[in-house]
Parts: sequence; C-alpha cells; structure tokens
Amino acid sequence: MPVPEAASVPAADAPSAAVVPAARAAIGDSEFDRDTRLTPREPGVYGIDLSAGWTIVNAVNGGYLLAVLGRALADALPHPDPFTVSAHYLTASRPGPAVVRTETVRTGRTLSTGQASLLQYDEHGEEVERIRVLASYGDLDGLPDDIRTTALPPRIPPLEQCLGPQPLPGARPQDGARPQADARPPSDVRPPSGGSGPMPGSSALTARLRIRLDPATVGWALGAPSGKGEMRAWFDLADGRDHDPLSLLLAVDALPPTAFELGLTGWVPTVELTVHVRSRPAPGPLRVSVTTRNLAGGFLEEDAEVWDSADRLVAQSRQLARVRLG
Amino acid sequence: MPVPEAASVPAADAPSAAVVPAARAAIGDSEFDRDTRLTPREPGVYGIDLSAGWTIVNAVNGGYLLAVLGRALADALPHPDPFTVSAHYLTASRPGPAVVRTETVRTGRTLSTGQASLLQYDEHGEEVERIRVLASYGDLDGLPDDIRTTALPPRIPPLEQCLGPQPLPGARPQDGARPQADARPPSDVRPPSGGSGPMPGSSALTARLRIRLDPATVGWALGAPSGKGEMRAWFDLADGRDHDPLSLLLAVDALPPTAFELGLTGWVPTVELTVHVRSRPAPGPLRVSVTTRNLAGGFLEEDAEVWDSADRLVAQSRQLARVRLG
Repeated sequence: MPVPEAASVPAADAPSAAVVPAARAAIGDSEFDRDTRLTPREPGVYGIDLSAGWTIVNAVNGGYLLAVLGRALADALPHPDPFTVSAHYLTASRPGPAVVRTETVRTGRTLSTGQASLLQYDEHGEEVERIRVLASYGDLDGLPDDIRTTALPPRIPPLEQCLGPQPLPGARPQDGARPQADARPPSDVRPPSGGSGPMPGSSALTARLRIRLDPATVGWALGAPSGKGEMRAWFDLADGRDHDPLSLLLAVDALPPTAFELGLTGWVPTVELTVHVRSRPAPGPLRVSVTTRNLAGGFLEEDAEVWDSADRLVAQSRQLARVRLG
Repeated sequence: MPVPEAASVPAADAPSAAVVPAARAAIGDSEFDRDTRLTPREPGVYGIDLSAGWTIVNAVNGGYLLAVLGRALADALPHPDPFTVSAHYLTASRPGPAVVRTETVRTGRTLSTGQASLLQYDEHGEEVERIRVLASYGDLDGLPDDIRTTALPPRIPPLEQCLGPQPLPGARPQDGARPQADARPPSDVRPPSGGSGPMPGSSALTARLRIRLDPATVGWALGAPSGKGEMRAWFDLADGRDHDPLSLLLAVDALPPTAFELGLTGWVPTVELTVHVRSRPAPGPLRVSVTTRNLAGGFLEEDAEVWDSADRLVAQSRQLARVRLG
C-alpha cells in the first residue's frame, strides 16, 4: 500500500493543481522504488521478489520488469541512466523470487553497454530465463541542451476530462482498469461523457498507476472500438511519485493495447521492446501516446512516445507484439 | 565485382521495366551473398572476412554487419527468418577477419531467440567486440495472410526521376554517393532537375547499392538542406539481386543520414538499431523512407520503413544515433 512520506510542492508545470494529491511519495521512497529494489548477491547479480502489485491478470507487467532490469544495470554499469534498452521477452514472469544477472559488455567515456537477464525458477527449482536485455547507458545530465525536435506533443484533453478506473484524487483507488484477456466490457461502463467512469476488467496494476485515457481512445471499453491503432493517456504513479528514467521504462508499456481499438480482444504479448530515454522528465504528469500502423501476419508494432509536463519528448519506444487475428 | 550469373524474369510488380538490368544476380549467388558468407568453425561460431566493398570512408556499413550477424543466427537457430533484431554497436568494424559467436537463448514453437556477437582483433591479437545483438527468429512463410496495415507507402517520384551516383542501368556503376564525414558538396553536383546527377563524397558501398534519392530529400547535397529530418529512396543491390529478409537488414541502414537534411554534416554513428522484418519482400525494387522527429541532447532517432514492390510494409526499424550539434 502507498505510504507517502514526503509532501512535495506541486510542479509549476502540472496542467492542473486539482490533479496533484495532497501528499506525494518521493523518488527513492515510493511503491515503485520499493517494488524494484534489488538485493545484491555478488557483483552484477541481484535478487528480487517480483511484486504481485504489478500484475495484469496473472502476468507481471512488462514495463515493471523492464524497470527492474534497468535498475540492475544502473547499479552494475558506470553510467547512471538508460539511453537505449532492448528487451526480448522469453517466458511470462510470475510474482515471486527472481534473480537478475548482469554483464558489462563495454565501458566507454560517454556510453557503456550492458546485458541483463531476469530468471525465475520452475517446479524443479531450475532457472528459467524470462527476459534478456541489451542496454546502453549514459548520463542524461551531461547532455547538451540543444533541442531541434519537430515532433509535437499528443493532443490529449485536460486530465479531468480523461477516463480512468479511479475517481479523482481524494477518494481511494479501486480496481478495474485494464481488461482481462478476452474480457468483454461489462454493461455498467459509463459512456465517455460520464467523466471518470470505471473501465472493464481487473488487475492489481490498476491500483499502482493513475492512467487517464483520452476519451477518443476508449471506444473499445464501450464495445465500439475506433478502428484506429491509437491509445493516449495521462500517466502517473498512484502514490504521486514524480518520474525518472526508470519510471519511463514502465510508462512505455502500461497503457491498454492499441489492438483493443482495432477491435481485437485477446492477449497481446510483447516479443521485443526497445525504449530510448532522451531526457530526464520534469516533475508532473506524463502524456503517453501509442500508435500501431502495421497489423499483419499475427504481429503488430506499438510505437510509444512519452512527453513530460515541460513538453519535452522524454522517451520513445517501439515493441513487436503477437496478436490473434480473428 | 558483380558477376551476374542468372538472368531472371523482371518482376511483374516492378514500377518500370526500364529499371531492371538485363541480367540479375540470384539470391544465394550475388555480391551480397558472397560477402556475408560465413565459415562454420564450431557449433554456433563462424568466421568471416569482412569485405572492403561495404565501407563508407573507413567504416564498414552497419546494415551489412547486421546482415552478417543475421545470417549467422539464421544458421544457428531453428527458425529461418529474423523477426526482430536489436543491435548495440560497440566499436567501429574494419574490413578484414572477424568471428561471429552465437548463443541460442530460447527455442519455442513459433519463435526462437538468440544472441550473437561480432568480434575482431586488436593489434595484440586480442578479441574486440564490435556489435552485440539479441534477435527473435520465426518463419515468415508460416504467418497468416491477414493484413490490417494503415500505414501508407512513402510518396517517392518514379525511379527514373530520382537521383543517384550511378547512371541508369546499362552503364557501369561509378563511385561517389555517400558524403564523407564533414565533406562539403563539390561544386559540380548537378541540381535535382539534372536527373541522375552524381552525389558528393566517395565510398565503396556506392558501387554495391543502387540508391535513387527522392529529389525532395537531396537538398543537403546542394548546400540547401530542407531542415526536415527526412530521407527517401528507391533501394536495390547493384547486381540486381532481389531482396530477402537478410537484405532488408541492409536496407534499413544504407541511406544518407537524415541529419544531412537537418543541416548537420558530421558523422552520425549508430548506438543501437532494432529492425522488425514483417514480410518476405516481393521481387523488385524497395522503397525506403527514413524519418527523424527528435534531435536533442546530441542524439537523434532514425525511423525507417521499407516497402516492397507489392506495396507491403516489409520492415520497420528505429535506431538511436549520436550527432554533433553545432
């Protein structure tokens, strides 16, 4: 459960003071930090108990796992920040004990490159590899300020007009954001005009995140998918912790799959996901935009952009995922 | 030198019969195939002599290297085709002897995952790692036909209106397509209206490829970059070999950098490149479109799409590259 210990000043850049909880968890002392904390076992090897708090149905969220691996590499490599992380997902992770093994591949002046594997144990106690990543790390604070970005932030309505499973701050969070595999929307889903109506399905992850979907991308929850491969949302951690490069690894794989808006209802497991962290995020909520342009042959790509409250494109990701066509 | 040994029937889908050479090299028996051929040393380990024919100035082209690694994994893994390949570039490769070491990470029914490293030798004979990749392989011919792609092919003028260093088929290829690092366009570059005018710089790679740039993206060669991070071209191998998944790995990293159209003239080394191969390409020329939207902090991304002659989006890639701002 969230135990905010540090009240923080609302960010000047936050779009609305109404969205900032009264007390916010601090970076380093939040649910997310506690649940990605690693126990060093030997140089480059870490133990962790994967939290059941970051699951969707039975599976541990891929973005949370990426953050766990990202934290291990931040410890093992001489540079602090993930610049580019490429993850290949091998088998589904479950809550419980896991080990992360890292290898330093190359150490350079500006960048260092490492590899990491997340492993769990089968019924015979044998190690089973869940995910393997290659990553290049650097120091975001050492980059020049020059920006020539032509990308524009996604057009998402103000946070209070977007839709999430939780009521707005002040009330307790409740379950029910991300639909189960093959779940059908229940009949009591409120239409987008109803404000902060519940979304179908149930998963523990919902309680850890504050996702507010653009009403234009929630047709799937109402039985009327738009047919466009788009998903957009405001994204925050439920305990109000501000963002850092590690929580950006979570943000790129936390929205409902774009496949839902394409009219597909099945599970969309990630095969590979690569994320580029381009800037340290400013305090305040993130906007995440995910787009799919090529659904073919039982696979699709999901391109995510993450924008911070200062209108900077702080992360870009692309994943290849499997989908059941029907 | 190209020695086409098999005359092949021009593809029905090729946009213009005029662009198809009279004799074309066959897949498996072409410059590209010969220069990516591996010598098995022990299970999963291969030797290769990196050809000087695929260099830009002194550096071996990253797409050619990716194809070498891709061929090694195609041999080592139980599945034949690269579905997603993530490469982290560690040090610059040079023409000459190299070794590829592969590891089978996981074997599944539909996908298998492997890792590969390309290594060369320093002046003391010690191994130096050049590139490390993680890749998931499958069987493109086993995928369902369902396509729901919303992406549209890039608008590129007909091939004969595009610009390349070589004259149109029938004459011998000549040097001089890709500019050197920091090279300035020579004064004899013909304007876009001049048709197939030469491009500045010199590199061996030029003789192996037939790249015809969209006139809208060659401002950089005339001292008038557009300011847009876009590069588009028709792409083929000089000896007329048709494309397969391995040559798609080459295609995604063979155009001049988008940074040139952003007014930058320096070298743009790849840090990481991930490519998704989504379909086996039809015979005939490819169209490649590369876009940069986020140039910031000394890095940029390049998103490439590769379309085949049947208007299918056959590959998507994204790379993170370093750039000197100033």
